[in-house]
Amino acid sequence: MNGQTSSDRIERWGLYEVWLTGAEDGNPFLDVRLSAQFKHKHRVVEAEGFYDGDGRYCIRFSPDALGAWSYVTRSDCSALDGKTGAFTCVEPSPANHGPVAVCNTYHFAYADGTPHFPVGSTCYAWTHQGDDLEKQTLATLGHAPFNKLRMCVFPKHYVYNRNEPPCHPFARAKAGGWDFSRFNPRFFQHLEQRVGDLCQLGIEADIILFHPYDRWGYSTMPAEADDRYLRYVVARLAAYRNVWWSMANEYDLMASKSMSDWDRFFRIVRESDPYQHLCSIHNCRRFYDHRKPWVSHCSVQRSDLSRAREWREEYGKPVVVDECQYEGDIEQGFGNIPGWELVHRFWLGTIAGCYVGHGETYRHPEDILWWAKGGVLHGESPSRIAFLRRILEEGPPEGIEPISRWAGGREGEYYLFYFGVHQPSIWTFDLPPSARYRLEVIDTWAMTIAPVEGTFGGRFQVALPGKPYLAVRIRKAG
Amino acid sequence: MNGQTSSDRIERWGLYEVWLTGAEDGNPFLDVRLSAQFKHKHRVVEAEGFYDGDGRYCIRFSPDALGAWSYVTRSDCSALDGKTGAFTCVEPSPANHGPVAVCNTYHFAYADGTPHFPVGSTCYAWTHQGDDLEKQTLATLGHAPFNKLRMCVFPKHYVYNRNEPPCHPFARAKAGGWDFSRFNPRFFQHLEQRVGDLCQLGIEADIILFHPYDRWGYSTMPAEADDRYLRYVVARLAAYRNVWWSMANEYDLMASKSMSDWDRFFRIVRESDPYQHLCSIHNCRRFYDHRKPWVSHCSVQRSDLSRAREWREEYGKPVVVDECQYEGDIEQGFGNIPGWELVHRFWLGTIAGCYVGHGETYRHPEDILWWAKGGVLHGESPSRIAFLRRILEEGPPEGIEPISRWAGGREGEYYLFYFGVHQPSIWTFDLPPSARYRLEVIDTWAMTIAPVEGTFGGRFQVALPGKPYLAVRIRKAG
Repeated sequence: MNGQTSSDRIERWGLYEVWLTGAEDGNPFLDVRLSAQFKHKHRVVEAEGFYDGDGRYCIRFSPDALGAWSYVTRSDCSALDGKTGAFTCVEPSPANHGPVAVCNTYHFAYADGTPHFPVGSTCYAWTHQGDDLEKQTLATLGHAPFNKLRMCVFPKHYVYNRNEPPCHPFARAKAGGWDFSRFNPRFFQHLEQRVGDLCQLGIEADIILFHPYDRWGYSTMPAEADDRYLRYVVARLAAYRNVWWSMANEYDLMASKSMSDWDRFFRIVRESDPYQHLCSIHNCRRFYDHRKPWVSHCSVQRSDLSRAREWREEYGKPVVVDECQYEGDIEQGFGNIPGWELVHRFWLGTIAGCYVGHGETYRHPEDILWWAKGGVLHGESPSRIAFLRRILEEGPPEGIEPISRWAGGREGEYYLFYFGVHQPSIWTFDLPPSARYRLEVIDTWAMTIAPVEGTFGGRFQVALPGKPYLAVRIRKAG
Repeated sequence: MNGQTSSDRIERWGLYEVWLTGAEDGNPFLDVRLSAQFKHKHRVVEAEGFYDGDGRYCIRFSPDALGAWSYVTRSDCSALDGKTGAFTCVEPSPANHGPVAVCNTYHFAYADGTPHFPVGSTCYAWTHQGDDLEKQTLATLGHAPFNKLRMCVFPKHYVYNRNEPPCHPFARAKAGGWDFSRFNPRFFQHLEQRVGDLCQLGIEADIILFHPYDRWGYSTMPAEADDRYLRYVVARLAAYRNVWWSMANEYDLMASKSMSDWDRFFRIVRESDPYQHLCSIHNCRRFYDHRKPWVSHCSVQRSDLSRAREWREEYGKPVVVDECQYEGDIEQGFGNIPGWELVHRFWLGTIAGCYVGHGETYRHPEDILWWAKGGVLHGESPSRIAFLRRILEEGPPEGIEPISRWAGGREGEYYLFYFGVHQPSIWTFDLPPSARYRLEVIDTWAMTIAPVEGTFGGRFQVALPGKPYLAVRIRKAG
């Protein structure tokens, strides 16, 4: 927010800003068109600008190629039109791997090729809780195993979520209610700050654009307000490399939106976003048709993870089971499974070649439940999820493919067996006879990894501890 | 086996036998037709007889009405034809409630109206293990919670089942192999003794007529041998009141039988059985069409008990999930779930208005696994299943109907909530406001029943222990 352009050296996938001063009268949100063409060699990328209030306009851009870039602005407001500038895109800092995209059909990688194994959590309304709690949430995330966070733009009205947000996304209308044609820049500045905070922590912000938990009218705006809102959010946030777009949480609970609305929202986001960030939509009961071309991956709410492989096969895209019920003890069925059951579901999804998300809903004297407001974690699952994340990161960089009912991995190279509630005290493995493998017995709850003595190949039996929630990791020897 | 008729006083649903002496030459199994018409007032019931070897013929009958009965035999062998006799059917002894039949669409009752809540187990090959082990099995069953036992007629060839049975159902053919036209009466006498032993223990014998686990050729007999075998078994066993017919275990694994074979088997059993005993067929993967009229109830193999209600609704008949995987630690997925998972599945099935069966497959130094051979029980589930059986027997005699995702019972009268892995620490109940109810919190694993102080009605909240595998029983107060 420096009121001028950023430094003339900007790291690859960093955030470059062009700040301009222009019309303050009328309704600049409606009246002024602003964009810029960013040029690198023969390539031109167009980015939309946005009005940030007080006569201040901004165009954000995230360069994806090293070297010299120049830009020229375009606007129907002469004070904003034809401004030019240039900068140099330099090597990214070590923690900056660029935005995440789909890789290997069912998996993800950062733009620099580093694999991304989504291990997400959920704090729907954490940015609407005020600085103290938000900072506590960030501190918690700094030590938590999560590299993705689902979060709503709009404030949330729901059980355990009756508090008024400190700030709203729109200006108040003189007649009462909200003026959906005037955004509240302060609200979005705050949101951006939190998205940036997550970026600093290496956490992808899975930004939920619409949701049904509403007492203010944000879930039932007219179509032109919806569309303008989407373009505004994309103009403001798309240049943050850690952004993922989620069209909605439980889209199918929003009775006022039709399927063609959802299709249109996807198209608007896809058309407006120069970076083609990941784009998904989260269901309650009925899946959206994830085969549609604008869907990058399936964001799934389902509790039966033994079916995860079906969804992968049905849609031919990565499956992220963002909601498979949460560790907690609230009354609602979505939020009262024990930690061990959530960890079990993570493992089931993992060997099916899918990704699973966390949430926590333990009752709290001040209604501070992680799943909505953030704060601190109370549950038993996060440490086990950290353990699983370590396993994933030590595994094949291309991601785990389903191999059988019991195993995922990469045929011939790497196998991760997971037995779930099953407790065989012996197991027959059938590996390629031409290679030798090392085995480790993993207790997914105790978080122990016990090597099995020797190397193995072909068909052989191994004694197992005969208890539930065990896994066996098999890697090529030597 | 007294070589003459039974006493002239026979209890209702008891076993009456007419013994005759006839032709011994040729092949009496093929050559001789024998039946008797049993007459009570104006009603005539025809029962088939059978050849028991050594020139001995028998007709068994189980009278279902009190008072005077008479009979006359019919045979194409003159020595067996036209024999007459009479007996009096008297009140049954206290433990004799008659055969079980379907009652209230989805449930069962004995012929005297006593409810039967099937709580079954599985010892497929227990009658092929020799007297010592079979007596141990009976002793175990005498203290176990099971009132139904699935058991095969034919011996079993399978993993952990490589031992040769002491006795075979057919005579050896001179050319080697088996002469499917000559039964081995000793084999069936032994089987009957065991069915009678179970009857003494109050246990229904769910007799599996065909199965695919075979090295002797019993699963691939020609059609005429199949049909003759069925008629012979029915003639011998139908008069035992504790008999249920199961056409097959895992019928869909028997590649040599077509769907029309299975339909024919059902029809033969239904036509031959004067008592219309319960008739089912057990699947591996694909369900038989249980809507067919000769199917009395659905015998289901499935592990996902959360779907039990669907099967009830699809087929409109009682659902007995005879196999939902077994407590044990063998390698095969069907036999290595922990006791608590099996108990969980029992409860899921129960609140869905279905019935669930037990089996146990812990590895044993002599391969004596309960699920096949009987012996003793090693697992943790039977005591909890006994506890559940007590709950069932204290519940509505008409059986439990599904009410919601979380509860079964009888609307307004009785509710059994079961939360499974969910661990709400509070719950809102919504009962009829016009009545008062008492609540008990049940720990299905610890087998405790803790009354909640007070009486309740209408909509109210109750604090719960916030741990998995809890149930709440709600009964009308006073």
